[in-house]
Amino acid sequence: MQTVLTIQTAGPGLYEFTPQVAGWVSGEGLLTLFVRHTSCSLLIQENADPGVQADLRTFFLRLVPRGDDPSMRWLSHVLEGPDDMPAHIRAALLPVSLSIPVRDGRLMLGRWQGIYLFEHRDRPQRREVAAHLG
Amino acid sequence: MQTVLTIQTAGPGLYEFTPQVAGWVSGEGLLTLFVRHTSCSLLIQENADPGVQADLRTFFLRLVPRGDDPSMRWLSHVLEGPDDMPAHIRAALLPVSLSIPVRDGRLMLGRWQGIYLFEHRDRPQRREVAAHLG
Amino acid sequence: MQTVLTIQTAGPGLYEFTPQVAGWVSGEGLLTLFVRHTSCSLLIQENADPGVQADLRTFFLRLVPRGDDPSMRWLSHVLEGPDDMPAHIRAALLPVSLSIPVRDGRLMLGRWQGIYLFEHRDRPQRREVAAHLG
Repeated sequence: MQTVLTIQTAGPGLYEFTPQVAGWVSGEGLLTLFVRHTSCSLLIQENADPGVQADLRTFFLRLVPRGDDPSMRWLSHVLEGPDDMPAHIRAALLPVSLSIPVRDGRLMLGRWQGIYLFEHRDRPQRREVAAHLG
Repeated sequence: MQTVLTIQTAGPGLYEFTPQVAGWVSGEGLLTLFVRHTSCSLLIQENADPGVQADLRTFFLRLVPRGDDPSMRWLSHVLEGPDDMPAHIRAALLPVSLSIPVRDGRLMLGRWQGIYLFEHRDRPQRREVAAHLG
Repeated sequence: MQTVLTIQTAGPGLYEFTPQVAGWVSGEGLLTLFVRHTSCSLLIQENADPGVQADLRTFFLRLVPRGDDPSMRWLSHVLEGPDDMPAHIRAALLPVSLSIPVRDGRLMLGRWQGIYLFEHRDRPQRREVAAHLG
């Protein structure tokens, strides 16, 4: 069983889409999510304190600053804007695919786990996540 | 076929559980492991020299220091202790799920590959890893 | 359906093998790739501008410098050469397995996504990637 979920983003940050996924799975099997882009990521993270998501965003901005930061003068791929190459680097450090067992129609997530699309680009984007249940 | 493996940890570091996994798989298929927490990780790494595991632990401690390190004053999520938010960040950088083909009842691991639970928190924890063989 | 793909490398960098994978898959299902080594990685990244690949390589060299760099004097696992422990660390930060849905015999990759073997070691290597289609 396959589908493509779409997630609209509006700037860098984490966008939870656990309900979209939970509503689609059924039965027993393995759910796989795959994001069809190289400048955003999938992530499973804590869904309780929004501070966790803010800190995650800050960490990755500090680890991989924007292209117009003096520390990033070594970048060669700069034509698509100061947010583009850092987005590719963050996409290398974070998951492009996730696999989650499903039992009795429910994702076997832990109590505090939510599924997020981590947007790395500035402008609004329509992101596609391919989903496979097998 | 599904199960939940439990791994008891006693502080930060790598805990190998390859034998538990190898003893559970059979036949031909795909094994998927999924850790049901956001402050520890799964990892496949070298199982020969324990120095590799020590260096991995040191690297992640240097890349993402504890919350009481002066360089981490920017953290906002600090209520759960100085080891908590760094644990979430390390969990974002390391795998939450792993998929390994199985052939003739054996994991298709390379010669030097072991499967580890990478604990990021200070206190002892009972960690759950959901396993799916399909 | 399972196979092992081999990729010959000649020093650090990204080696695209999308065509090898695309030529092997068929029907509808889930493709999983698993690299049987702990000093190289799998990666899905932009396949348009080679500058992206060069910048990714530079970023990981700066984040995890070679063992003979003064900033890496803390390493304990040094017997296998100055490129070995940094390779293990980069392998922890980058994917060891990837899962990609397949529909109508085609990988559901996005338009700009290519599949790469990211080599972290200096000397030429013959790398094995286990592939499972289920």
